Amino acid sequence: MANEKKLSIIAFSGDFDKLTAVFTLATGAAAVGYEVNLFFTFWGLDAIKIKQGRSPVGKGFLPKVFGVMMGGLKASPVSRLNFFGVSPKIFRYLMRKNNVATLEELVDAAKQLKVNFYACEMAMHILGLQKADFIPEVKDVLSVASFLRLSEGGQTLFI
Amino acid sequence: MANEKKLSIIAFSGDFDKLTAVFTLATGAAAVGYEVNLFFTFWGLDAIKIKQGRSPVGKGFLPKVFGVMMGGLKASPVSRLNFFGVSPKIFRYLMRKNNVATLEELVDAAKQLKVNFYACEMAMHILGLQKADFIPEVKDVLSVASFLRLSEGGQTLFI
Amino acid sequence: MANEKKLSIIAFSGDFDKLTAVFTLATGAAAVGYEVNLFFTFWGLDAIKIKQGRSPVGKGFLPKVFGVMMGGLKASPVSRLNFFGVSPKIFRYLMRKNNVATLEELVDAAKQLKVNFYACEMAMHILGLQKADFIPEVKDVLSVASFLRLSEGGQTLFI
Repeated sequence: MANEKKLSIIAFSGDFDKLTAVFTLATGAAAVGYEVNLFFTFWGLDAIKIKQGRSPVGKGFLPKVFGVMMGGLKASPVSRLNFFGVSPKIFRYLMRKNNVATLEELVDAAKQLKVNFYACEMAMHILGLQKADFIPEVKDVLSVASFLRLSEGGQTLFI
Repeated sequence: MANEKKLSIIAFSGDFDKLTAVFTLATGAAAVGYEVNLFFTFWGLDAIKIKQGRSPVGKGFLPKVFGVMMGGLKASPVSRLNFFGVSPKIFRYLMRKNNVATLEELVDAAKQLKVNFYACEMAMHILGLQKADFIPEVKDVLSVASFLRLSEGGQTLFI
Repeated sequence: MANEKKLSIIAFSGDFDKLTAVFTLATGAAAVGYEVNLFFTFWGLDAIKIKQGRSPVGKGFLPKVFGVMMGGLKASPVSRLNFFGVSPKIFRYLMRKNNVATLEELVDAAKQLKVNFYACEMAMHILGLQKADFIPEVKDVLSVASFLRLSEGGQTLFI
């Protein structure tokens, strides 16, 4: 059935390894014909921000504190190895050395494979973000209810 | 189909941001007519404890160590910002400032929207908790198998 | 319907508590007749390694850094209590004291209940692991796409 070929992921984490998992699953599924919907929320919004170096969080002191923590893809920590600091680099190095796609390449592949990118309305409100803060591939800003409706009939993961 | 309007969440984490995600998804889904089942287990049991300030974990030294870590909703750390300590407060402040429901409000909304609360039997055994330790909205104590049966035919998330 | 009796878990985390959740869900579901498929990836590969004390990660300096972090089941940290170091022990003690199966017992039960173990091809590439590094119960090495196909029509969780 058509509805069995749909994968929806709520991308909540901003950790490098978890974002890698999100995009590995997304591209792996899209490559074999799945409809893939990614719903970026909270820390996961990192992955779809424009200008990865700059803090996209709204103006003011408190949003800035979050901004420092949300420095974009290249800065995203590995969940378990955060203390070492070097670990995203090691991860990246191992991926490169073993001919596995890096996170940036996986994001590019996801775009080319027509993976659907959505941003979470509520998290954007909390963090003071606008649609203009995200890459143009972000198709729409959705409420939780809209995303759930979109993902009906398929497999849905929270990462 | 009826079975496409069901959302079940295994609420495992006690982190403030993840619990916010649990209740945002739950209320968002319930508001548009979904049957929503929340299965609180391990650290997630924090969210349904009575008297948030008091340790609900059973008697004895070792359960107390866990009790300190499980101080209830107001004490729940944000998963990525735990080191700063201040971050749940910042989060709460941003939610308030931007007119987004706080976690406590989301829990209240979930109750009013008839979201079903269940507690995990096995985690209660490990942590020495009784049904009486939880808010009265907790409908039942369930085994893993019973919860899986309950969530069949819908979307199930682990958070 | 047959397809409603299938539980598939992407076991990504190497944390003691999350692995406990994986195997509790797996055995709970298998015990009531579910087909259960576990897909071990990244840190989750810990759970299926042979010789838990030894680093299974490939040769060279950088894989060794990962190897130290991936010391197998007995060394797996509890996600929230990692700083204390003692917590997996406390957890284990509480499980023992309250007659709840420990993680090792849950893994054994999963094998006996014919839970299907699969290893993630891509994570093995990154970490330089071979099928021979895993316990013989590992049925196959699968791509993401193959695992998604396998899990179609059932409930799928990411832990």
